Amino acid sequence: MSLDHERLTRVKQAMARAQLEALVCRLPENVLLLSGHWPLAGMTFLYFPVDGAPLCVVPHCDEREAREELGDMDCATYTHAVLGCENPYEAVAKAFKKAIRGRRPSRVGFEGGFECVAPPWNTAEACVPASATRAMLESVFRKKALVDATDLLHGLRARKTAWEQERLRRANEISALGLNAFHKMVAPGISGIELLAHVEQAVTIQGAGYKGARRVRAFAQVATGAAETAIGYRPMEITTTRQLAPGDLALLELGVVADGFWADRTRVCAAGRPTPLQAQVFKTVHRAQQAAIAAIKPGVKTAVVDEAARAIIRSAGYDKEFMHVTGHGLGFRYHEPIPLICPGGETVLEEGMVHSVEPGVYFADMGGIRIEDDILVTAAGAEIMGPCEAHL
Amino acid sequence: MSLDHERLTRVKQAMARAQLEALVCRLPENVLLLSGHWPLAGMTFLYFPVDGAPLCVVPHCDEREAREELGDMDCATYTHAVLGCENPYEAVAKAFKKAIRGRRPSRVGFEGGFECVAPPWNTAEACVPASATRAMLESVFRKKALVDATDLLHGLRARKTAWEQERLRRANEISALGLNAFHKMVAPGISGIELLAHVEQAVTIQGAGYKGARRVRAFAQVATGAAETAIGYRPMEITTTRQLAPGDLALLELGVVADGFWADRTRVCAAGRPTPLQAQVFKTVHRAQQAAIAAIKPGVKTAVVDEAARAIIRSAGYDKEFMHVTGHGLGFRYHEPIPLICPGGETVLEEGMVHSVEPGVYFADMGGIRIEDDILVTAAGAEIMGPCEAHL
Repeated sequence: MSLDHERLTRVKQAMARAQLEALVCRLPENVLLLSGHWPLAGMTFLYFPVDGAPLCVVPHCDEREAREELGDMDCATYTHAVLGCENPYEAVAKAFKKAIRGRRPSRVGFEGGFECVAPPWNTAEACVPASATRAMLESVFRKKALVDATDLLHGLRARKTAWEQERLRRANEISALGLNAFHKMVAPGISGIELLAHVEQAVTIQGAGYKGARRVRAFAQVATGAAETAIGYRPMEITTTRQLAPGDLALLELGVVADGFWADRTRVCAAGRPTPLQAQVFKTVHRAQQAAIAAIKPGVKTAVVDEAARAIIRSAGYDKEFMHVTGHGLGFRYHEPIPLICPGGETVLEEGMVHSVEPGVYFADMGGIRIEDDILVTAAGAEIMGPCEAHL
Repeated sequence: MSLDHERLTRVKQAMARAQLEALVCRLPENVLLLSGHWPLAGMTFLYFPVDGAPLCVVPHCDEREAREELGDMDCATYTHAVLGCENPYEAVAKAFKKAIRGRRPSRVGFEGGFECVAPPWNTAEACVPASATRAMLESVFRKKALVDATDLLHGLRARKTAWEQERLRRANEISALGLNAFHKMVAPGISGIELLAHVEQAVTIQGAGYKGARRVRAFAQVATGAAETAIGYRPMEITTTRQLAPGDLALLELGVVADGFWADRTRVCAAGRPTPLQAQVFKTVHRAQQAAIAAIKPGVKTAVVDEAARAIIRSAGYDKEFMHVTGHGLGFRYHEPIPLICPGGETVLEEGMVHSVEPGVYFADMGGIRIEDDILVTAAGAEIMGPCEAHL
């Protein structure tokens, strides 16, 4: 990208408020936040001073993609994963030392508290800051200079810039391709595994190149039937080879990442004709989602949005069966902590926040029904990103 | 599983040698190592004392799968991700405190140095030990009792037990389904993205239920043509919508995880008739792989295995084009540090080690050719896991 000035300005203002002279990051989600580049593997490091130019330190094999995405930002490379190459931490330390030119900043924010992380493009293997990263940072900046910037980074991530919103809109449009593929394929006889594989294939093939997206990956899970769908809520459903029987529900939980930006959607669909109860619950959940979305605008507390959904479900008599939050932040990761749309939530919504709206009702006999979309808080209210009709 | 007594015995012996009274783990790869259970999300914690019974602390929503996989091992649950639930770290701390019954062990090994991690079944979002895990462990065990057990765990992981070997054999057999699908589909006109999607679909659908496998996921990358395949070596290729032209190479890098056990394979295939140079290089790389495999047996240094492959490639005049190691350990993760099959490698192979054998030759004009399989070091030599013919 050309530098996202809105993002850079906000970051520097937050750093100034926290009296940080620099930030150092290696988690792909934070490298993306601060540079616009989504690392291929997890071996990219970023030095971001409050004054002066940031420096992205990249394995040599990823240089081309990095330079294309970094635009004007400085990029240094080190030889990686080939014979005779240096220890990567020593190589990165050298690049950082060169960048600070002997003047060690007195307060440097680092990623000390990320217990939950987004993968790089190599989603099979994440890299995270543990003892080796810590030792490298201490060698460059001194131990006493290091300050945990986890909360600062999460705070910065909560409000997306115009450039980031565009990327999230694209990720959600790509995820809608998967939702549509799901709706077309649900029928008696097909298994959860087959639905999962077809949805992922649709996203992978149709998503690559969609409005210029370069690296797209889908993580689908499809629970089928009452026993699998009624679990309520867990971060990932289990998908089995069980075949859909007529009247069974299939519940798709779909994570999509497009160039580092995440979408998180859910759809439910009945195999054949829905039962009257399924139709009634679906209608209630759908109305609850619409009510929550209608309540969203800058200045509103998240408790109000949660209650808008919960009141509809309560009045239908299903409140005990809606046992989870109404939504969570997301974007730089599948799930982000801000804002949390929950009972009693005190966070005040701001323009640029992106969060899920995902009411659900789960009965042991009937199974579970959840509808999830991602919305952007706008000046006027809420924009549903990558809109896609939900129907049973 | 019923407890893997071979594994438990080895772990307790290593703990005794290191004077560790307990191990505590939360990385899915180490929970799997010490309990046989592959966590669904990353919120499962394990307390493993050198004397007495281990305890696995599991989110309530994952209880069924956990109990099935833990067999006789103790399992405690905590309410997670629903309204009104406790902070997970407080819940886990309570369970751990109950397990130690007021007698704090004086030396407790933890995962302090894992910079590279395998995801849980929810591969879209890994959980790792950062400051909150550390604070929780300090509250239960006291700060001074905590000892970084990263090297001990990697050392234990290097040699797989009979039960683990069986799981790795299955993962490799499933990955062979993907390799075969790839070979069937490579032809002029198809794109890297389409190949990727079809390979993943084949593994997902055919792998689910294969010899009882429950949770299978594929991570394919397909580079096509000279520019994409000649990069040499990077942890993940870039896959594009570029269509194969006649004579182009397609290079598949395929990671597969089956119930927590990983396979790492590579195949290359020409669209249409290979050129004489492609055929010659392929033959050399294939002979190099076979020579390395023939050199593998317990007691041999990894340098000897590397040199067996490298000598073949050198005598063909391609040694500068083979710029990476011959192989790496794997199994509990896509890549593991022990053994590393590299020039000068001093590690002595032992029965039960599992590593890749992946010579490759990369020319800017022609593109890259790599063949990768996973082998098990046996008393007699090497077993190729999930054997699958390699051909251009």
